[in-house]
Amino acid sequence: MDKKELILDALRELFREGKAGTASVSDIAKKAGIAKGGMYYYFRSKEEVLDALVAREYNDRIKSSAALIEQCGGNALEKLAHLFQSYRSAYVDPSLDEYLHMPQNAAIHQKSLAQIVSSLSQIIADILRQGVGEGIFTCAYPQEYAEMLLSVLTFLLDPVLFPQSSEQYIGKLKALADMLEKGLQSETGSFAFLYGE
Amino acid sequence: MDKKELILDALRELFREGKAGTASVSDIAKKAGIAKGGMYYYFRSKEEVLDALVAREYNDRIKSSAALIEQCGGNALEKLAHLFQSYRSAYVDPSLDEYLHMPQNAAIHQKSLAQIVSSLSQIIADILRQGVGEGIFTCAYPQEYAEMLLSVLTFLLDPVLFPQSSEQYIGKLKALADMLEKGLQSETGSFAFLYGE
Repeated sequence: MDKKELILDALRELFREGKAGTASVSDIAKKAGIAKGGMYYYFRSKEEVLDALVAREYNDRIKSSAALIEQCGGNALEKLAHLFQSYRSAYVDPSLDEYLHMPQNAAIHQKSLAQIVSSLSQIIADILRQGVGEGIFTCAYPQEYAEMLLSVLTFLLDPVLFPQSSEQYIGKLKALADMLEKGLQSETGSFAFLYGE
Repeated sequence: MDKKELILDALRELFREGKAGTASVSDIAKKAGIAKGGMYYYFRSKEEVLDALVAREYNDRIKSSAALIEQCGGNALEKLAHLFQSYRSAYVDPSLDEYLHMPQNAAIHQKSLAQIVSSLSQIIADILRQGVGEGIFTCAYPQEYAEMLLSVLTFLLDPVLFPQSSEQYIGKLKALADMLEKGLQSETGSFAFLYGE
């Protein structure tokens, strides 16, 4: 295993132990079992390690979601439902999530949201194109529709940026389903998986 | 004029002079013509002044947009077109905008985006309700539609979060117009003001 991965694993482990917030570069190096000097070869600061860890965690989440929907097959709506369920249930360490929501980590948080939108939108755009081919969607802008869908899911539904009751949260998902069904000229209720069973 | 406003004006003036980045609390107090001690009565740090200035600038922008559309009158589509034009042309100091996009100010930037969405969405939701009354829109979720529209405009169209060519930018606006026209069951082309004349 390469040292870079060991360093990221070490910081992730410190998150699990609830010690990441106060951990120094030395603490991370010690946990990774490498010399502090060796660590600086890969990362210049704790922020850089955190940045790389966040990128890796979200990439893993997106790759495993993409692999899952390939395995499951199905039509475009079934694939979108699978993808949404896998995205929602993907495990992101709560202490990492909390850390990203601290004001001093807002830049890394913003970057992580933009990264999710950029990577996942390509997967979703392909599924929308598949749906057009299957005759269940009409869509002249699959890439942009995917990006708009993801903007709502990552930005508008963020509970820290927009403190919201569960009724408001469900209301946003119902409105998103309504807008997608009409926008894609898909059957009424076909996006009900966004807000219910 | 109250001292708080004087302090905010001083920081805004420092932005216009290109000196805000390096200005200390003392510099802001001096510019405002008040004692440094007096300043701490209102704000504990430069970050707090910046935070308040951003809130004031965006509130002013939103209030003047709202006043403008009230004056102009017109049907819901005309009001939305006015609001969009006034939002785009509203002057925000470029140096303030640049400052907000620096990584260390990401928290204030995020907060400012969320504030725009929360305040403007109420104005837009009222216009959508008006359009439903006028029979030019169908919409069961006016508040949520307004929030989704604003998420795309503030988050997905942010040029720093999502570096994009002008073709990509226009593509997003065309897709947004398409989704709104279909979602609101409004006439094709009725949201063309988003991307053209």
